[in-house]
This record gives sequence, C-alpha cells and structure tokens, in this order.
Amino acid sequence: MPTVIPAIVAPSATEALFTGSVERRDVGPKDVRIDIRWAGICHSDIHTVNGDWGPQHYPLTVGHEIVGAVAEVGSDVTKFAVGNRVGVGCLVNSCGECASCAAGEEQYCESGAIGTYGAKDVDGTITQGGYATSVVVTEDFVLRVPEAIPYEKAAPLLCAGITTYSPLRHWNAGPGKKVAVIGLGGLGHMAVKIAHAMGAEVTVLSRSDSKRDDALRLGADHYFATQDPETFRTLRNSFDLIINSVSAAIDLDAHLRLLALNGTMVNVGAPPEAMSVRAGTLIGRRRSFAGSNIGGIAETQEMLDFCAEHGIAPEVEITSADQVNDAWARVLASDVRYRFVIDIETLKV
Amino acid sequence: MPTVIPAIVAPSATEALFTGSVERRDVGPKDVRIDIRWAGICHSDIHTVNGDWGPQHYPLTVGHEIVGAVAEVGSDVTKFAVGNRVGVGCLVNSCGECASCAAGEEQYCESGAIGTYGAKDVDGTITQGGYATSVVVTEDFVLRVPEAIPYEKAAPLLCAGITTYSPLRHWNAGPGKKVAVIGLGGLGHMAVKIAHAMGAEVTVLSRSDSKRDDALRLGADHYFATQDPETFRTLRNSFDLIINSVSAAIDLDAHLRLLALNGTMVNVGAPPEAMSVRAGTLIGRRRSFAGSNIGGIAETQEMLDFCAEHGIAPEVEITSADQVNDAWARVLASDVRYRFVIDIETLKV
Repeated sequence: MPTVIPAIVAPSATEALFTGSVERRDVGPKDVRIDIRWAGICHSDIHTVNGDWGPQHYPLTVGHEIVGAVAEVGSDVTKFAVGNRVGVGCLVNSCGECASCAAGEEQYCESGAIGTYGAKDVDGTITQGGYATSVVVTEDFVLRVPEAIPYEKAAPLLCAGITTYSPLRHWNAGPGKKVAVIGLGGLGHMAVKIAHAMGAEVTVLSRSDSKRDDALRLGADHYFATQDPETFRTLRNSFDLIINSVSAAIDLDAHLRLLALNGTMVNVGAPPEAMSVRAGTLIGRRRSFAGSNIGGIAETQEMLDFCAEHGIAPEVEITSADQVNDAWARVLASDVRYRFVIDIETLKV
Repeated sequence: MPTVIPAIVAPSATEALFTGSVERRDVGPKDVRIDIRWAGICHSDIHTVNGDWGPQHYPLTVGHEIVGAVAEVGSDVTKFAVGNRVGVGCLVNSCGECASCAAGEEQYCESGAIGTYGAKDVDGTITQGGYATSVVVTEDFVLRVPEAIPYEKAAPLLCAGITTYSPLRHWNAGPGKKVAVIGLGGLGHMAVKIAHAMGAEVTVLSRSDSKRDDALRLGADHYFATQDPETFRTLRNSFDLIINSVSAAIDLDAHLRLLALNGTMVNVGAPPEAMSVRAGTLIGRRRSFAGSNIGGIAETQEMLDFCAEHGIAPEVEITSADQVNDAWARVLASDVRYRFVIDIETLKV
C-alpha cells in the first residue's frame, strides 16, 4: 500500500503551487526511504511545471535537489543504513545495461534515464520529486552527503553542483586553463567555486557590473560585464573553456569568439529557443560548441566528496513551504543569491 | 624587378575571368620559384572572387591547390633543389613566432597567416594565386609531392586533402570509429578516401541517391540519402564523428542528432549564412559542433605522405585555361566528379 505524505503540489501548468500530498511506494528490497530535510529549487522545476519542455501529468510534485536522512532500507540494501545523511539528484533509475550505464554515465542512458519527477517510472507511475517529506529511491541512485558539507547547503549540489562539475572535469579545467562562466546564478556560482577549486583561472561574464563583488568573493579571478561591447574585444581568443549557465538565448558567435584555439563552450542550460551560429566562427580557431547534461551517479558522488574536501558549498537562501510561490517568482526574476532551499520541516507541521 | 607572367585573372566580382598576366617577385634568399604544372579549382576561389567572404582587391588571380617543379631556389634555401616536384596550398607565410606557429599550426597563426591569394603579403602587395605559370614562395610553405601521387591529381590534396585530413586526425578517426561525411564533392570525396584509409567505418550522407555507386567505390561502407526522412530516424545516435563538407546551410539539429554520445560534427565548409541550433540537441548526448580550418604545413606534408603510402588521390577532371569560366559554372552547379584541375600548359602557349 502506497503511503500518502505531505508535499507541495502543482495542480496544472498555470495555477499556483499548494500544500497537498503525494503517494510514495512501499520500500522494496533494494529501496531506501529518505526523510527529506532540505529541497533545492531549480529553474528546471519551473520550466517543467510550466510545460516549457513538453506536456506534463498533473498534479505534479517537483524537486530534484534532495537531502535528508535514511529512514528505512529494503532487505537487500547494502550501501546505506538508517540515519545516513544522503541525497538524491535528477535521476532515480536507468536501464543499467546500455553502454552509457555500464560506463557510469546514467544521464545518457540509451533507453532514457528516469527523472526524479514527471517521468514514467518502472512501475508505470509518474515520478514525484523532492518538495515533500519523504521519497523512496533504489539505492543505486542515492548519494552519500559528507558531514563536512553544511546540511542546509548540500541540496543544490545534487543538480547545480554536478551539472557544472561534470563539464569542468570532462573538458579538463585545472591549473593553466582559462575558464569563463557566463551567468552568475544557481549553476554559474557553483561553476565559479568548482573551477576555482580545480585550479583554473576563472573569469565571470555577467550582463551588468552588479555581481562583480560577489563573483570575486566566490573565487573568480576576473569579472567582465557583457553589456559593455569592449568586453568582447578585450577577451577575444582568451578562453580554453566557457561554461554557459544562461538558459536563455545569447549571441553565440560573440561568445564563441572569446575561445582560444581548440577552446570549447559548453551549454549546461537549455533555452527553449534555437540560437544562431556561423560555422566560420568555429573554423577560425578550431572552436567547439557543446552541451552537457548533469552527471552520472559515480561522478555525482565524486563531486560531493570534492566539495567536502575543498570546503565548497552553494550560497543559499532558506525558504518555507508556504513561501514557495514567492520563491519561484524571485527565481524567474533572477532575484536570489544564489539558490533557494526549502526547509522541509515547514511542510511537516 | 618583378616578373610578369601569364595568369588567369578576375577583373572584378561580377565579370568573367580572362587570360592576362600577374607579377611575381624576384626570388629572395629563402624563396623557391615553382613552374606551375597543375592548379586545382576550389569552391573558395569562387567565393573569394564573388566577394562572399569580404571585399577584394582586383584584378585578382586565385588558386591555392598548386603543383609544379622547382625552377629556381634562393641562396639560403636548404630544403629544395631545382627539379623537385612540389606543391603550395592555402598559405604562403605566417608570423612564425606565436604559439600556433610554434606548434606547427600556421593556419591558426595569431597574427593571421598569409593566404595564397587576396591577402596582404609581408611586402605590402596582395598575394596572387596559382592559376598562373609560376609562383614564388618562401621555402617553409612549400611541400614535397611524392612521386607515388599521379602528378595531375596531386593539386587538390593541398586544400581538399588537408582540410579533411586534419579534422579526421584531430578527432581520431580510425579503427572502431564510425565516421559520416556530409556531401560528396571535392572535400567530401577526399574525406571518404582518407577516413577509409585510416580504418574508420565510413557512411556518406548525400542529398539524393545519385552518388551511391561512386561513394561505395571511393571507400564508403554505407550510403544514405538525406532527402529521405527515414535516414534521420535510422541513423540517430550513430556516429563518433561527422565531417560536414557542405558549404551551404543545413538543418544542424537534425544532423547533430545523428551523433552518438561524445560525438562531434565538424564543419570544414563555411556557409555565408548563419545556421540555427538548439542547445538541447547537444546536451542530450554531450555532443559537440566544431569547425576546422585546413591544416598546418607539417600536417600537410604528413597528409601527402599518407596519401602516397595508401595510394590515395582525388578524382579529377582536367580542364584548360580557356575553359575556366565554364568549369566555375559547373562547380557552382555541383557538376564535377570531383575536382577540376587546370592544365597550366594550356596557359603557356
């Protein structure tokens, strides 16, 4: 018998969220039930509920930055015990058999990995996310959250952290490499912290000058405002790697020209609009324009351990269950430095 | 005193080519004078004369696929002797001092490499290309053309050959790799031959079925017509590397979806129009869209030696000086299999 638990619910693409309930399945042999303590608010939550990425099944509970404590384990669970501090990110399952899964890159599962919310689960139900008091997940998709990471700050690492860590690792950010980060929001501020910790020389490209002090405090070596056309002349041919965290269309050619020979610009945000690009911009310096999707489970664990070791955590603003609609409005207005985290205790009362 | 020699001349962006003359400088201490025997016709020649890539100085002699025999060497020349069979490609000089030049990638010279025609030379004159009876070039930009390559077929290797060889090497085409080539023209047919010789599994993507037999004869393992929508379903997520040789806009998203995880599509043609791309197409399989520009001098020599060793040469149609306007019209109509080469003897009478 599924258990009914408190949750924040989207009734449709156009109505406000409300505090209601959602069902969780019984704990199976390989499952872990997590009492959720903190849930991050990701821009993807809003895109999904709004239907920007395709039609959804409603009512829907979103949230894929989940941190809490293990409350129950199935009979065959070997990796976790009751009381462990754990997390769940964007994925809750995958086929486990394709080349991508075998390589530990479940995010690229050839059968399609199962997202933490709004996806068809193996039992045919629609997955429901972490704006809720608990979740049941197969242990292979549960992460250990090191004690060194402050509890209330850990949740955004499960999406914003891994989404930036993975391309920084894949394209070899590190000492001697010049890395630029476009946009200083939830993803961008994590990209700055992680790239800095990896030893790269980090430049933030933000629209205006308003985030300069923050960027330098977070670990950036340089800061340029992209509303100043001089920026594009000064920085031409400069970067080995650019992480574009902006999930709206940008002037691709102008930004690609900032890449040095063999440089790559990686989009981690997916604007719904198409963008325009000239092949000549790429040809001139053997540049690449790429995309990267979150990270695999093993790499997510590696990222959590890296953040613990380097003392890295997101900058968060705590919000409560009854303030979530306001928080979403502020995310849409880019009015959060830099990630909202819902205190799930406020949902339990 | 410069020498006046016979050449095919473009009087303007809009008038027909005519047989006239061009000046060559005296042979300096490091220079080689080459009696040109064969000159390939590249689509770039036409784009340049038409002003598609920016305004030009007229009259202009184009041609950057040049093969002939050394006729004279300067006092300090050490690499060549009179009578050597040699070639000149798209570049005749570069700064020699920047990081790209130091790495043997003169095509990405940070000061701007000097193109074989239409570029400002070190002495301030405008470089003039190979539709002429001779050329004077500093020895560092002259290539040895192995005797194993048929003389009349060697010229197109200097542009079409290196432009496809370089990205195939850079992105590791070889055994176990699935490579697709979009477009079976001057560049595309060389990409097929070279990728096949490197040991890759080669698929040709051409608009219609008309070039199927040719493609398979040239070394392709598979052939698909892109006017058949089924092609894009059948081949989804298939390729490690796609070489796009088409220098007109294509449906980027549709073609990028043919890439497997971590696959790269490389444009070697530069359509004047911008193209549209969705970041989501790249994110879904960590795909890249890249560009590549010819190759360095050392790599061009490596390519020539590779072609000699593997018995690779372009498929050519010989034309004469008085037929060049017709040949250009046929290039624009894609009516050549696969490269025109001008018999420069016809310019000497």
